Amino acid sequence: MRAARLHEYTDQMDEALTVEEVDAPTATAADDVVVEIEGAGWCQTDNHVVEGMWAEYVPQELPLTLGHENAGIVAETGENVTTVEEGQPVLCHPVMTCGTCRPCRQGEDMYCENVAFPGLTHDGGFAEYLRTNERAVVPLPDGVDPADIAPHADAGITAYHAVKKAVAELNPGDAAVVVGVGGLGHIGVQCLDAMSAADILALDPKQSARELATELGADRALDPTSDDVTAAIENRTDGTGAQQILDFVGSDETTALGPELAAAGGDHHVVGYGGHVHEPSQTLVDGELAYRGTLVGQYTELQELVALVERGDVELRTTRYDLAEINTVAEQLEHGEIDGRAVITP
Amino acid sequence: MRAARLHEYTDQMDEALTVEEVDAPTATAADDVVVEIEGAGWCQTDNHVVEGMWAEYVPQELPLTLGHENAGIVAETGENVTTVEEGQPVLCHPVMTCGTCRPCRQGEDMYCENVAFPGLTHDGGFAEYLRTNERAVVPLPDGVDPADIAPHADAGITAYHAVKKAVAELNPGDAAVVVGVGGLGHIGVQCLDAMSAADILALDPKQSARELATELGADRALDPTSDDVTAAIENRTDGTGAQQILDFVGSDETTALGPELAAAGGDHHVVGYGGHVHEPSQTLVDGELAYRGTLVGQYTELQELVALVERGDVELRTTRYDLAEINTVAEQLEHGEIDGRAVITP
Amino acid sequence: MRAARLHEYTDQMDEALTVEEVDAPTATAADDVVVEIEGAGWCQTDNHVVEGMWAEYVPQELPLTLGHENAGIVAETGENVTTVEEGQPVLCHPVMTCGTCRPCRQGEDMYCENVAFPGLTHDGGFAEYLRTNERAVVPLPDGVDPADIAPHADAGITAYHAVKKAVAELNPGDAAVVVGVGGLGHIGVQCLDAMSAADILALDPKQSARELATELGADRALDPTSDDVTAAIENRTDGTGAQQILDFVGSDETTALGPELAAAGGDHHVVGYGGHVHEPSQTLVDGELAYRGTLVGQYTELQELVALVERGDVELRTTRYDLAEINTVAEQLEHGEIDGRAVITP
Amino acid sequence: MRAARLHEYTDQMDEALTVEEVDAPTATAADDVVVEIEGAGWCQTDNHVVEGMWAEYVPQELPLTLGHENAGIVAETGENVTTVEEGQPVLCHPVMTCGTCRPCRQGEDMYCENVAFPGLTHDGGFAEYLRTNERAVVPLPDGVDPADIAPHADAGITAYHAVKKAVAELNPGDAAVVVGVGGLGHIGVQCLDAMSAADILALDPKQSARELATELGADRALDPTSDDVTAAIENRTDGTGAQQILDFVGSDETTALGPELAAAGGDHHVVGYGGHVHEPSQTLVDGELAYRGTLVGQYTELQELVALVERGDVELRTTRYDLAEINTVAEQLEHGEIDGRAVITP
Repeated sequence: MRAARLHEYTDQMDEALTVEEVDAPTATAADDVVVEIEGAGWCQTDNHVVEGMWAEYVPQELPLTLGHENAGIVAETGENVTTVEEGQPVLCHPVMTCGTCRPCRQGEDMYCENVAFPGLTHDGGFAEYLRTNERAVVPLPDGVDPADIAPHADAGITAYHAVKKAVAELNPGDAAVVVGVGGLGHIGVQCLDAMSAADILALDPKQSARELATELGADRALDPTSDDVTAAIENRTDGTGAQQILDFVGSDETTALGPELAAAGGDHHVVGYGGHVHEPSQTLVDGELAYRGTLVGQYTELQELVALVERGDVELRTTRYDLAEINTVAEQLEHGEIDGRAVITP
Repeated sequence: MRAARLHEYTDQMDEALTVEEVDAPTATAADDVVVEIEGAGWCQTDNHVVEGMWAEYVPQELPLTLGHENAGIVAETGENVTTVEEGQPVLCHPVMTCGTCRPCRQGEDMYCENVAFPGLTHDGGFAEYLRTNERAVVPLPDGVDPADIAPHADAGITAYHAVKKAVAELNPGDAAVVVGVGGLGHIGVQCLDAMSAADILALDPKQSARELATELGADRALDPTSDDVTAAIENRTDGTGAQQILDFVGSDETTALGPELAAAGGDHHVVGYGGHVHEPSQTLVDGELAYRGTLVGQYTELQELVALVERGDVELRTTRYDLAEINTVAEQLEHGEIDGRAVITP
Repeated sequence: MRAARLHEYTDQMDEALTVEEVDAPTATAADDVVVEIEGAGWCQTDNHVVEGMWAEYVPQELPLTLGHENAGIVAETGENVTTVEEGQPVLCHPVMTCGTCRPCRQGEDMYCENVAFPGLTHDGGFAEYLRTNERAVVPLPDGVDPADIAPHADAGITAYHAVKKAVAELNPGDAAVVVGVGGLGHIGVQCLDAMSAADILALDPKQSARELATELGADRALDPTSDDVTAAIENRTDGTGAQQILDFVGSDETTALGPELAAAGGDHHVVGYGGHVHEPSQTLVDGELAYRGTLVGQYTELQELVALVERGDVELRTTRYDLAEINTVAEQLEHGEIDGRAVITP
Repeated sequence: MRAARLHEYTDQMDEALTVEEVDAPTATAADDVVVEIEGAGWCQTDNHVVEGMWAEYVPQELPLTLGHENAGIVAETGENVTTVEEGQPVLCHPVMTCGTCRPCRQGEDMYCENVAFPGLTHDGGFAEYLRTNERAVVPLPDGVDPADIAPHADAGITAYHAVKKAVAELNPGDAAVVVGVGGLGHIGVQCLDAMSAADILALDPKQSARELATELGADRALDPTSDDVTAAIENRTDGTGAQQILDFVGSDETTALGPELAAAGGDHHVVGYGGHVHEPSQTLVDGELAYRGTLVGQYTELQELVALVERGDVELRTTRYDLAEINTVAEQLEHGEIDGRAVITP
């Protein structure tokens, strides 16, 4: 089968991956599920993997087929698989988990002690077929095209997970700031709108992104490069500040927004990454501010997100690309030239 | 009356404050309470105030009487005060709050929109008398000497507040790391022990502090300058890491412990301050790690801490000093030469 | 001034109250606020007070002016009142609280140890003027007519409070059952819709109520006297059951719905009253079911509800009546003949 | 092998079960684990099963081997089992779960949609061997005798689960009432003591039980048949009442304690069963009281309880009986003649 693989870490996105012929995977373990990929989203994390940023965080051997945002049709199942069958459309939770370690028992799939992460630690879904396991696949409702929904497998669940943590702290009328309205942020705005009665303020330097934000439920969208964001939030909150900040960018500039914008006791959720958090301890103490990292989400959260999709509460903005165009996608995302989410259709 | 006042920000702790004669305060507002100070704890924050570190965070005019850890006997009450009366021993919550703003309504005294903070924004308790208000005073149970309990007014409530947040995330057998067993940490260890069944590991470079930790309930105490702390925690937690870290120091070195020691999804509570939090966003994301600032605590938490004292679950290690010795105390604390807490008895 | 007063407990709703001339209240205490009533909602609880059902629960002396759902214009303030002034439109939280007891400090207004409850323990708002206090009044946003919003003072806050507890347990796609779409229920449906992405099923024997429910956000409305509710919920939840039940009726029949409809670990919130909860302990154990009583709500929750009103998320269906018609209202509500909420305009 | 089986529902406890010869189970499914029973606790629920009280709640076919509180040595494992091996001592969580349904994913083992409950729906552990599965077995720490710890498999986890829910609502100094200090209650007292700084009041008509309670950590023990419990709790809580009530009995009399003893907003946890909850809806509303059923506990909670045992925080009081004496045990428990817990050693 054809697969897009990383052979060497590089900053040259236009030659990041090589599309080549490799053996298709088969269901060797009893709980294996092989999925014929209908769509696989390209994620900022793929750029980071290409750059080698994940090499020190997870076990990773090259060459590696990237792609961790996968959806498709079940093609083969291991002998003990009972919850899905051949021909069924599924969305793939990004990680394969064991189901018996303590974190799995607690529902914390991302903390599984025996985790495998296709696209980061094992071959992923920028290929015709992907091997994952039974615990990772969410059956899709009738009428949902896997290629349309693929980005929910990672961008969606990650945005949802962060929003769910934020919503637990948001009362009606509280202000929530969404930083960055790209692949994750445009989902985050919709989840916030569906799950809370917060006042949603979106920040993005791109006008098209700001328009998308207000169309999808933001109460207001601002350009952080020209608008006086601090004054705007002061004004909307009578000087209190924003209870929750969802930072889908994670750069040096965006993490600095926390102390600027947050209400006392507020949270700055770090979802995107690339830059640093750098603040005096005293700043965290004085405002009782928290920087809370957020990592993908649970399998059950992916179910909840699919329920939001079924309810019509969350829609994706996607553009489809052929496998052969994958480095163009990598290049364009690096330069912020993709609105919504790019989906590779192998 | 005599009071110890700051006239100029300085790094010279041996000449930090001037003991001088000033007018004693009176109960001018209807809810005012004037307290004759029996004891006022000296806190690391006093050093920071002397250095000018709080000037940019709160409104502060010099000269200023320091001292925000106060206990004593009610000397005078405003006309509307009904819950305490002259002659009654009280512990003073560090801030005077309005009781009608939204944060006050939510019990978040530290976020009061009309707050006054004696010792930081108004004259404090290193003096014979302190003016505070009815909402700030906690009546003491019979038999408790105010001078013995004064440090609970800030060190105690701050440690308790941080521990209460941590305990909500700690299951029996989980590991909790206490960083720094000084004025706050030695209270933190006891609160953790009373309120959870966590495995408590204390870190302190001073041997006397480590001995105090194990005496007061830590399951183990380590010297971070010589022991292999990471290995020790790996070992005690079967490689999982510590669910909660209580950082009573807040230096560059101690905030770096979070990614090193924390379990996936763990929290690093920043209680002490002085250094920075400096980490790649990716580190927070990868381990779903949170840095959570913590600021003093609620009035109701001070009530809960007094309940712990009544139950015999928390004891303070204090040494008493005369008002005239106050700069010696400042100097010694700066050099880490005080075990437990220093209490000034004006 | 004119006031509608209860002189004797009775089941005869058509002669429940006597409209008569009494002295108007004045601001005697320093934090008193006298409100000129623009609107006062009639509540099922008023029927229960008339019947004497509250006599054993709270201190109550007759004759008593009823009316605990009040809004109007500030007419006079005590000398220490700073947050509102004469001429300002306000919504009245139902109870007067002290602000210094522990429950008040925790924001639990309804548990205040020194509470007064106009309309239940003191003279209420079915009168030209009401005496309440500063901690009870919520300033209204511009352009909101107090008479339009009066029912939020009790029906609204009670529905909101129950919904807020339920929402904390509801994930997207979970089922929430609203039992009874009257004065409280029609607000409850809207709050649920604004604050969650749950699947909302409303139950009411009246067709007009069911139509109102779907118009205001319910995903489906059923007639419990003829539809097979159990089958419908089984079907919508794939056999799991409803995670949360909001029982705005509280009769013997409706409390019996819990074990019938609830998912394992579900909650049956008892908001309305009049009947009994009567179940074998084993039924609660087997389904890990909770019956959770719910009592009005906090002052801060009333602020949050006003924020929902400002956002356009919650509208009230009210009909206005003159003070002289008050017993007609009592009679009609007793027979379920009032849609939405009746508001008395003295 | 020998097994004690129920052939017919009966109230005659002295002839409840028949000890007879049956085929020993084998590991037929890939995740099966066969355990050689070292100890199996007799539980009040066994009496209720004998009486037929569970027939309408769960699928149950007679004859049935009872016994759901099991511990022993792994005797055989299915081909896919990796986390335990032959010869290893284990404690058995009471239910066999699937690991792939949504409740299992959330850690809610008791709500598993494909659950099997040995001793209630399948053959249990009053026999030489028990068939359970990999997801049900908790490996024991070195030096722990399975027969000593067997009652934790149900009595322990049930008490722990209820206490964990209560502890989340208990601040230091709050009052917690433990109703019934038998097999569950004596564990509940210890868990409360280890996990909170609450004031623990135990109620039991038996003097030996009250003595056990205070020995194990209760701050006070009262005889509800002669002491004025209401006055005692009023007194200890300054009239506030008990924040949490843990009712390990669940009779008509004990469920009536909630409104009598609970603080506003308090919870009455229904753990034991046999009687009814019977209260006016208004009583739940007036005190914002909740009756919360509680059903066994999660696998991860059993791990946490084993951690408490390892820490020395919880000890069991057990008496061992031979399989042949099983009806004597049934009879004695029915009459409240067993202190602590009876363990059958087949």
